[in-house]
Amino acid sequence: MAITSPEVKAALETIFAADSEFYRDRGFQRRIGYGTRPALVVIDMANAWTRPDHAFTCDNMEEIIPATQALLAAAREKRIPIVFTTTAYQDPTGPRSDTGLWHLKIPVETLLQGSEAASIDDRLDPQPGEQVIVKKRASAFHGTYLAGYLRSQRVDTVIITGVTMAGCVRHSTEDAIADGFRPIVVREAVGDRVPGVVEWNLFDIDAKFGDVEPLENVLAYLNGLPALAND
Amino acid sequence: MAITSPEVKAALETIFAADSEFYRDRGFQRRIGYGTRPALVVIDMANAWTRPDHAFTCDNMEEIIPATQALLAAAREKRIPIVFTTTAYQDPTGPRSDTGLWHLKIPVETLLQGSEAASIDDRLDPQPGEQVIVKKRASAFHGTYLAGYLRSQRVDTVIITGVTMAGCVRHSTEDAIADGFRPIVVREAVGDRVPGVVEWNLFDIDAKFGDVEPLENVLAYLNGLPALAND
Amino acid sequence: MAITSPEVKAALETIFAADSEFYRDRGFQRRIGYGTRPALVVIDMANAWTRPDHAFTCDNMEEIIPATQALLAAAREKRIPIVFTTTAYQDPTGPRSDTGLWHLKIPVETLLQGSEAASIDDRLDPQPGEQVIVKKRASAFHGTYLAGYLRSQRVDTVIITGVTMAGCVRHSTEDAIADGFRPIVVREAVGDRVPGVVEWNLFDIDAKFGDVEPLENVLAYLNGLPALAND
Amino acid sequence: MAITSPEVKAALETIFAADSEFYRDRGFQRRIGYGTRPALVVIDMANAWTRPDHAFTCDNMEEIIPATQALLAAAREKRIPIVFTTTAYQDPTGPRSDTGLWHLKIPVETLLQGSEAASIDDRLDPQPGEQVIVKKRASAFHGTYLAGYLRSQRVDTVIITGVTMAGCVRHSTEDAIADGFRPIVVREAVGDRVPGVVEWNLFDIDAKFGDVEPLENVLAYLNGLPALAND
Repeated sequence: MAITSPEVKAALETIFAADSEFYRDRGFQRRIGYGTRPALVVIDMANAWTRPDHAFTCDNMEEIIPATQALLAAAREKRIPIVFTTTAYQDPTGPRSDTGLWHLKIPVETLLQGSEAASIDDRLDPQPGEQVIVKKRASAFHGTYLAGYLRSQRVDTVIITGVTMAGCVRHSTEDAIADGFRPIVVREAVGDRVPGVVEWNLFDIDAKFGDVEPLENVLAYLNGLPALAND
Repeated sequence: MAITSPEVKAALETIFAADSEFYRDRGFQRRIGYGTRPALVVIDMANAWTRPDHAFTCDNMEEIIPATQALLAAAREKRIPIVFTTTAYQDPTGPRSDTGLWHLKIPVETLLQGSEAASIDDRLDPQPGEQVIVKKRASAFHGTYLAGYLRSQRVDTVIITGVTMAGCVRHSTEDAIADGFRPIVVREAVGDRVPGVVEWNLFDIDAKFGDVEPLENVLAYLNGLPALAND
Repeated sequence: MAITSPEVKAALETIFAADSEFYRDRGFQRRIGYGTRPALVVIDMANAWTRPDHAFTCDNMEEIIPATQALLAAAREKRIPIVFTTTAYQDPTGPRSDTGLWHLKIPVETLLQGSEAASIDDRLDPQPGEQVIVKKRASAFHGTYLAGYLRSQRVDTVIITGVTMAGCVRHSTEDAIADGFRPIVVREAVGDRVPGVVEWNLFDIDAKFGDVEPLENVLAYLNGLPALAND
Repeated sequence: MAITSPEVKAALETIFAADSEFYRDRGFQRRIGYGTRPALVVIDMANAWTRPDHAFTCDNMEEIIPATQALLAAAREKRIPIVFTTTAYQDPTGPRSDTGLWHLKIPVETLLQGSEAASIDDRLDPQPGEQVIVKKRASAFHGTYLAGYLRSQRVDTVIITGVTMAGCVRHSTEDAIADGFRPIVVREAVGDRVPGVVEWNLFDIDAKFGDVEPLENVLAYLNGLPALAND
């Protein structure tokens, strides 16, 4: 999260400290905790977000990519369900576009389904048996089969990583708990592209929607699980 | 609907007549009517359903294909939104399959995403600007972006065609009215593969969920609409 | 299911036998089976359906009510989640009605939220800790918190009972498997109001969406489960 | 939004200015604009949020209540659909609670369905024909009939007000655009309870999900509409 300067971070930390005191006093910021059957959901780690020179290019990939690789290795070891998402459109620019209304707000017209830009970054390399969901909206759950798929796998916990924090990661986390899953957001594996938004969205999420956890804890959790049977 | 013998049809018609009298007496079987901004939704007219020798092969394609072609021509003339669906899976057979639980019930393990079997029949030939939605469940709406897409296009009416009547067409129609759209099911453009099911599902739908209309009426409706602006 | 005459039943059984042979040959009509964490969902057993003289009055309550009572007793013994639904509207008749478009098709304008007609039949008597969901559409899942609620309880199996078979029970069952739950429909605990529709909808469901099971089997399953912990 | 001190506001404004420059350069922060058929959605303006001494009590009601009253008056004048939400539970504390997993994170156990705390503030006074939706999760759309209801009314624009900004208002706005509606968030009619969160959530929303508009503009828009016919 190098894009937020020390001064901005310090200012935000002061706000968060005051807010946290208030929240804890009122009974917010509880721990939701880990369940027993997790899935790993990797949001929008496609080239349009992970590589330079796109409208959607994000920062801090030097930290986010290795963190995600470590999570993928642990998840594959335990055979837990792994889902990648990308955001892409069959018809990014026409009058009947599947961008819906979103092109009126953000540059989704640059995201052609099947293009290199919309493909998952090959440093993460989806394997057979792992899902790649092409979504149209911010949330990995909204307008996709993700919730039904995860329930069919009896998943109770969703480990969430990817980009962007203020957009797709935030909305996905809100939907995850609404859909009945425990959201765990991995601090080192999420990012965005402008100062502040990673910090304040993690703050809001940890107060209300899911647990924000350091990579180390999440890896320890995954490593401590029994491998999932192939049933 | 040649697969239902005249005897079976006659027996069913007798039941339907008795039921209809009861329903009309109770206030069912009303007409929902056509709105002003339709979309055409063509369900699962992919080769696994339209061509011989698949587990999902349906009957009566000699009537359904030309009926659908006529609807597509009328819809393209008026530039109304057109959506095709197919049902297909990234991982049809593995322990983390996106078939969810459905392979426990029906042979969805034969439907590989990207295969010829799962591709839309080229006699219908989706054009640029028309959506092809790969769904995982019966309904064209469930776990897809269809409802949000249609609302972004200010659609109020969904013309429904395709297969199978007892599965995907039925569930899609139920979801269409639940999602706030007027469902119009085109009698000559829907089908299935065993005797009776087309008839009794059309009967149930017309009683409770949408209007079952002859092709001629639907074409007259479409032909009478002004062409949709490209806004 | 007394409303279907022996002649009609026999005619339908002949069709079903032919269809079943075809389906089994093609790999349909498999058994989805019971999971380990069920919920009991009782659909629209409110007075407008269970008592005489309503537009929605159903038949065969002398069988359905005791069957549902037996299921409720077994479910309560094991502390599994129990959900009742009713269909009712805050504004059944106005121009901004929450009936949406459904009043254009069926007499939902008779179902006022909070009325005696829309209340669960007191022979079933919902207990504290059991949910009563007021839904607006046919499916118990569509536009309600049911799927998220059941996932938060880690439910994998949904025992489905109630009315009407051709409407709310059918749509709920289709949604249940789509949402990742194993649907079990209890033959003696579902009903409708016109001849034939119970039979053909059970047939379609058993072929494609869920297992239709006799009450005896479902009770044996519930009685064989360990009581759910209060966690 | 008196709860955010001038110093905090100034610090945040500095961050927002830098971020906005970056966003506009990349093609974010576009204007989605007003459509022609709006609905007014008033989120969680129930006593637990609008009155003192609840876990959920919010600030700045002296500004938010009159702003909401002005919007309601304009909306009622034009007969557009009006929807209130509250968040409340049939069983706030039991092992089968409809709070799902949310009580593990925030104090939803204080929100009993039907209680005074969960009732809409009588200064806003819902009228016959206006919907009061009891939701279980943050979003007004998630697990409710709102999207289907609005589509059945052919709504294309959702005017969003209420609390809390970092929770229910944010999630509802994200869902609104995903469901195909133009979200307009009214700056003076939204609030929260800790410093900063109103500002940064409005910033994120305006960048990516909906237009944040001053009350004056929204009232001018509503006043300029023709009254909706009672069709």
